[in-house]
Amino acid sequence: MDLKTKLREVPNFPKEGINFIDITTVLQDAEALKECIDAMKAKIEAFGDFDLIVGPESRGFIFGTPLAYALGKGFVPIRKKGKLPYKTINVEYELEYGTDILEMHIDAIKKGQKIVIVDDLLATGGTTQSNIKLVEQLGGEVLGIVYFVELTFLNGREKLKGYNVESLVQY
Amino acid sequence: MDLKTKLREVPNFPKEGINFIDITTVLQDAEALKECIDAMKAKIEAFGDFDLIVGPESRGFIFGTPLAYALGKGFVPIRKKGKLPYKTINVEYELEYGTDILEMHIDAIKKGQKIVIVDDLLATGGTTQSNIKLVEQLGGEVLGIVYFVELTFLNGREKLKGYNVESLVQY
Repeated sequence: MDLKTKLREVPNFPKEGINFIDITTVLQDAEALKECIDAMKAKIEAFGDFDLIVGPESRGFIFGTPLAYALGKGFVPIRKKGKLPYKTINVEYELEYGTDILEMHIDAIKKGQKIVIVDDLLATGGTTQSNIKLVEQLGGEVLGIVYFVELTFLNGREKLKGYNVESLVQY
Repeated sequence: MDLKTKLREVPNFPKEGINFIDITTVLQDAEALKECIDAMKAKIEAFGDFDLIVGPESRGFIFGTPLAYALGKGFVPIRKKGKLPYKTINVEYELEYGTDILEMHIDAIKKGQKIVIVDDLLATGGTTQSNIKLVEQLGGEVLGIVYFVELTFLNGREKLKGYNVESLVQY
């Protein structure tokens, strides 16, 4: 199956001039969802042995938890400020205008654990940079990063130099 | 495994007097996550044949997508206002102070499809009531609702009378 044909492009969302890649048409198609998760799983298996999947709120949850389940690993959520109930570490994260804060539980990762980061989309790479900082702050080692979709024209890989980066579908 | 022992209770979150049930300690434990998803899967299988899993942002994503994957079904996300890129239907949803709006894509469910709603926690039942309204607005039939955790002292089941409601862990 060509997963690209299952994605929906929505013009001018969230604002004029942006062509948004809508993943929900894949999610709601049982066969496409299975093929997507299985293909991301194969990319992760090629990285080698690891301990935990980490995924950021909220589309990272959509791909991260089925992958953790399918691979027999645990899942660690990264959330926006104030959502995680226990003690957290945090990182400030630049938005187009202003900044935002991402958090991870302080006991989510043990020093030396090998981590795979999962998200739906690689755009500028800014969110993933923040995710890497959180993982490394706790002494985790980022073994690799897997996306469903990559917007190659935004050069997100430039920001992620030195890391294993994989994606299933490229624009 | 007694999954209750894997949950963490965080006192006074998000505010004084609330004992928050933290699911992240289950998620990050590979065996507990597998057992949790497999047990929720068994509850869903007992409902009978169905078409789609529906889950609300964002902890509903954490349980909904691995269940959809494991059961070979599609997954439909319900999101907060302005997050879904395509045409949506919406429902207003009462908060402690004021209201919020939940949305679902207009083509997410076809008339007559059988739906299972998945979320992490049954508290007052308000979020699930909104989820049911969205599903039924598109002509879907709610076959059942499954939670990981249920706070029985909040009587959420009262609001969900007439629906099949299941949970794994009760407080």
